Amino acid sequence: MGFDRLIARIRALQNPTVAGLDPKLSYVPEFIRREAFSRFENPFEAAAEAILTYNKGLIDALCDVVPAVKPQCAYYEMYGWQGMRTLAQTIAYAKEKGMFVITDGKRNDIGATMQAYAAAHLGETQLDGGVLLPAFDADALTVNGYLGTDGIAPLTEVCTKKDKGIFVLVKTSNPSSGELQDRLLGEEPVYRAMGAMCERWGEGTVGQYGYSAVGAVVGATYPQQLEELRAALPHTFFLVPGYGAQGGGAKDVAPAFDKNGDGAIINSSRGILCAYQKAGCEEHAYAEAARKEAIRMRDDIISAL
Amino acid sequence: MGFDRLIARIRALQNPTVAGLDPKLSYVPEFIRREAFSRFENPFEAAAEAILTYNKGLIDALCDVVPAVKPQCAYYEMYGWQGMRTLAQTIAYAKEKGMFVITDGKRNDIGATMQAYAAAHLGETQLDGGVLLPAFDADALTVNGYLGTDGIAPLTEVCTKKDKGIFVLVKTSNPSSGELQDRLLGEEPVYRAMGAMCERWGEGTVGQYGYSAVGAVVGATYPQQLEELRAALPHTFFLVPGYGAQGGGAKDVAPAFDKNGDGAIINSSRGILCAYQKAGCEEHAYAEAARKEAIRMRDDIISAL
Repeated sequence: MGFDRLIARIRALQNPTVAGLDPKLSYVPEFIRREAFSRFENPFEAAAEAILTYNKGLIDALCDVVPAVKPQCAYYEMYGWQGMRTLAQTIAYAKEKGMFVITDGKRNDIGATMQAYAAAHLGETQLDGGVLLPAFDADALTVNGYLGTDGIAPLTEVCTKKDKGIFVLVKTSNPSSGELQDRLLGEEPVYRAMGAMCERWGEGTVGQYGYSAVGAVVGATYPQQLEELRAALPHTFFLVPGYGAQGGGAKDVAPAFDKNGDGAIINSSRGILCAYQKAGCEEHAYAEAARKEAIRMRDDIISAL
Repeated sequence: MGFDRLIARIRALQNPTVAGLDPKLSYVPEFIRREAFSRFENPFEAAAEAILTYNKGLIDALCDVVPAVKPQCAYYEMYGWQGMRTLAQTIAYAKEKGMFVITDGKRNDIGATMQAYAAAHLGETQLDGGVLLPAFDADALTVNGYLGTDGIAPLTEVCTKKDKGIFVLVKTSNPSSGELQDRLLGEEPVYRAMGAMCERWGEGTVGQYGYSAVGAVVGATYPQQLEELRAALPHTFFLVPGYGAQGGGAKDVAPAFDKNGDGAIINSSRGILCAYQKAGCEEHAYAEAARKEAIRMRDDIISAL
């Protein structure tokens, strides 16, 4: 119920962070790429294979330290349907290793279509003869609430049935997020209105730690809004991107947490994925470098709480 | 440039409509499903194959009457990576038959990630050794502008380079669209602010018919807003969902067009896809029934202009 499974895992590992799996091919060590491209003629097949190998290495190195991974759909779609196969295989592998998987798809649509997205990413697809099978089967999905309640209700239904969660974009980490999100609707900015909708959409799905199945994306790059939203949205669990490469630090993300140190999970993608490049270490040690950076990040954030 | 290719095709066929390809497996005639499920053991493989056969039949029957198709991503993702392969194959087939393809993905993210989506759906993916290849390669993509300019700029760049277009969600067709979109930012509702951003984002990409490469999604179910937005956004081409099954009629969509009868394309999905069920005709005639409904829809809309 709510984000109980995720919060329990965060508590067990004492690590409120998530590793973003945004595997651009140029991040993949050359020895992995060379091996894959020598085996497959089709470059999309080869890229998808290289990324899967890279991801598995990262997951192996991170799974006993980091509670969750967040594959970003765009970096799988970019490699065609073969990339989407790698997404499905990555999700399955991470779950096998005990990780909570958040698919970062920022999906949105009208109700009937949102049912299809909910089935695709969190639930099960109706196949022939009444057979129901999961397609991508993540634990949580990021979504965009611009279409209102119709676009969210099919998701909360699946969340309740399958013990899953969603994160709605509230205040995003990018420089231009304020163009719409900071504009005032009467007294309150758009992001506050979206946050209030998250609280409403989450009603009836609150779990044992006090958080509902409807979380919010709030960027580390806007610490004031993080603090304001933490106070305003007591049942909304936060997914916080923007730490590291995008400029947010441990002090910036501290306001995302509640008094118990719950309430948020902080994402780092490039910082972990490219740790071996930044550290200038041998590329065969890419997973070890990722693990070291993940531990550094954990300690950095825990020390600020 | 702009939506010139689409507008030229609409004029040539005298038909400002687009067929939505939202192929739920239950819409696919039984003889196609039976054949596919007898050939493939894996139900996702079978479903993907059945949908591809169904789509090809529809495209064959529609391509000399209807200028464009709009595959809805959700109904392909629902069938896993095999469904995404069917999406790629459907796009390629429709283009081969001269149709303009709008991928309805409502994608959105921060700048760096939006580059990946732009590559995936409209541009080319950088593979090993500097090789550039298209992944899904549609002519246009629907997107969500909640993140502001950062999330749109990577797309307009690809649009300019590859003569493609995007449609930004402005006023959606669903019942709850007003929860955020109708709320007032000072004097103007959110959808007007989003519309104004579309005009700005489209600057420098206006084609010979006066429309930019940045279009807008405006629902047929809100005819007043359609009229208001047509007047306010002279360079923004409209993709109008909500005709037919969602309740919009020809009179409702007429205000989407400019004085020359340009400026908009009206979508119908279920109406065309399920025409054979509605007409009660033999399921082998599904494509013929779709064609008949597409012609009826064309005549209905043209008569209201």
